[in-house]
Amino acid sequence: MNMQTPWEHRFAQRTQRIKGSAIRELLKFSERPDVISFGGGMPAPEIFPVKEFQEACIRVLQNNGPQALQYSTTEGYLPLRKYLVDSMAKNGINITPDNVLITSGSQQALDLIGKIFINHGDRILVENPTYLGALQAWNAYGAEYVSVPLDEKGMNTDHLEEALRYGPKFIYVLPNFQNPTGVTLTLERRKRLIELADHFGIPIIEDDPYGQLRYEGANIPPVVVIDSQMRNSTGLYSGNVIYLSTFSKILAPGIRLAWIVAPQEVIQKLVLAKQGMDLNTATFNQHIAFEVAKDGFIERYVPTIRKVYNERRDAMMDALTEHMPDGVKWTHPEGGLFLWITLPGKLDSVELFKESVEEKVAFVPGESFYANGGGRNTMRLNFSFVSPEKINEGIARLGNVMKRQMK
Amino acid sequence: MNMQTPWEHRFAQRTQRIKGSAIRELLKFSERPDVISFGGGMPAPEIFPVKEFQEACIRVLQNNGPQALQYSTTEGYLPLRKYLVDSMAKNGINITPDNVLITSGSQQALDLIGKIFINHGDRILVENPTYLGALQAWNAYGAEYVSVPLDEKGMNTDHLEEALRYGPKFIYVLPNFQNPTGVTLTLERRKRLIELADHFGIPIIEDDPYGQLRYEGANIPPVVVIDSQMRNSTGLYSGNVIYLSTFSKILAPGIRLAWIVAPQEVIQKLVLAKQGMDLNTATFNQHIAFEVAKDGFIERYVPTIRKVYNERRDAMMDALTEHMPDGVKWTHPEGGLFLWITLPGKLDSVELFKESVEEKVAFVPGESFYANGGGRNTMRLNFSFVSPEKINEGIARLGNVMKRQMK
Repeated sequence: MNMQTPWEHRFAQRTQRIKGSAIRELLKFSERPDVISFGGGMPAPEIFPVKEFQEACIRVLQNNGPQALQYSTTEGYLPLRKYLVDSMAKNGINITPDNVLITSGSQQALDLIGKIFINHGDRILVENPTYLGALQAWNAYGAEYVSVPLDEKGMNTDHLEEALRYGPKFIYVLPNFQNPTGVTLTLERRKRLIELADHFGIPIIEDDPYGQLRYEGANIPPVVVIDSQMRNSTGLYSGNVIYLSTFSKILAPGIRLAWIVAPQEVIQKLVLAKQGMDLNTATFNQHIAFEVAKDGFIERYVPTIRKVYNERRDAMMDALTEHMPDGVKWTHPEGGLFLWITLPGKLDSVELFKESVEEKVAFVPGESFYANGGGRNTMRLNFSFVSPEKINEGIARLGNVMKRQMK
Repeated sequence: MNMQTPWEHRFAQRTQRIKGSAIRELLKFSERPDVISFGGGMPAPEIFPVKEFQEACIRVLQNNGPQALQYSTTEGYLPLRKYLVDSMAKNGINITPDNVLITSGSQQALDLIGKIFINHGDRILVENPTYLGALQAWNAYGAEYVSVPLDEKGMNTDHLEEALRYGPKFIYVLPNFQNPTGVTLTLERRKRLIELADHFGIPIIEDDPYGQLRYEGANIPPVVVIDSQMRNSTGLYSGNVIYLSTFSKILAPGIRLAWIVAPQEVIQKLVLAKQGMDLNTATFNQHIAFEVAKDGFIERYVPTIRKVYNERRDAMMDALTEHMPDGVKWTHPEGGLFLWITLPGKLDSVELFKESVEEKVAFVPGESFYANGGGRNTMRLNFSFVSPEKINEGIARLGNVMKRQMK
């Protein structure tokens, strides 16, 4: 019996080639407490509804403890699904609980969609740039990408028709305060997107984590609603758009709760796939979220989030005006958590990042958000996590690094 | 613009072919409250530590609320990983926190392993029968299976050598109180498994959800420990076995917390894969579990679980002796949650199931646990969920159905 075999490498040799990213390594520096981080997509923890969670935990465990700690159905806790049906009806999304699947965060929703839709080599139509978590989830299924450029009105639908001729499996779009750019798809372009998708027979996946976090301007109906209205006079969900949203930005991300709205037969397939992935989303968390939310708490809480993030967005816009060197451009997000910077020609955001970390300020270099490469002259800034004072200090540091590198 | 396109089917047509199982549909009947269910793998909810969870929730939210409700690292909450390192050291597993990844239940551990190891068409060596959740997770990655028969001493290692010549990617084994059969792999066979795996250069995945739930007989060290001892004199983890375990059976499944022990370079790949799957396991749940467990609560609680399940196992063994017709055989599990029935030739467990549901008693027909088909004359019974009185009543009903079908 030979015990000299290099066992310790045997497992590693048998794994898929999974690419670690240089940026991921760099971002670890940004987690140090002395760094001002515009890097993550984290909510402001100081306004989390801690007291409401505490009360909900006590009530759930008192009234429903054994059930809340047990396995549960893959579809999700029915009272929570009913709550979501009622809550989404206020935004014009008219569905039944059979159209709702509770997921372990929106990232799981993206993974599930990858699992049931994407065959190796399938093309997915995405905005350019788009949410890197979606790319990460779908790369694992061998997705390839057709990308459509964005401008301050969102996905540029003038380029959509040509892209649709590549035969994508679906269109992935973040219409409100897009991650990473912060731009919002206009009503006119939403309609054009729906028309073109219908013409080419390509379904749409609408990712809407920040829809409730608007700080200025009028709400625009979700794509799923416009689509239903264009399709039938009743406004009932017609199943042409899969809609994703999450509790992470309107309650707390640490409970990992999100949901998918889809045609019932798609939900059934998602349920089977999810069963093999984690059996069910944590029962306890679903009971707690329902208990916190059921009497309208979220409607009372969201205005606080809006107020705080609005101040931080304004602080960041002001700081950018004050500290950015000439030639740097940025978007004006009407809501959400992010804005997007475009650098003048000679600056490279990865190089900038390396020096910024030494100055203890962090962001995400833009290239990670480009499905097919590019974007070295772009970067994403988050404004929800850091206080207004620190935002100004961080942007000042960033401006100094840029000025040094422009010399 | 043509709005008559049958949009509602467009999504469904684009999904993978995911097979719903007939048994899954049947099992829905078993969820009715008037059915005596030996079908699931559920712990007894009446002994869940509800009070301890309540106290932990209060303390975590009081002392650490914002952090517990925020996003966190994919690897898992460091104090919980350290707790697991200390706790596993008592079973002879000597590792560091860098060898531990917290997952959203063991089902996610299985999915993650599928994601990083299995390419379409890869063969996996499994026990015959084996845990159906593993098959469900790995079927999604296009796995095929080489299976090795079981007897009352666990996987029959006399058949292992031949199976290893098929070149499986890894060996999947549940050595303690196996799901579905309840049998335990003997020490002698554990050693033979390790020798043969080493000889053929094939790594082992050891799934150990029930290791602490032994009701009789002496503990046998986990495969991961024996392997380390055979390999080096220090007994330090040598990385040849990936070990899985879970809080679901020693705390509560509704919090969806489990863990993987693996070589550090494998953990790093699992972390990258998990990031695309759900970013991180619920921060809140990890804080709560740590708070419940940190002062030795699990060591005090497990004897209660053992006592209750031991009574139920005995009740089921007695009831089987009393009510089963001649020719029916069953295993004698020394621990865990399940036992396994083999029917005489003319009985078919799927046919039996259909009639049993009408008699309001449920189980899982055995065929689901066979990777390559067969097993229509077998069935799995769970004894942890139902009270001893109901166990006797349920087994009596089952005996009556069998006797009718044998006529």
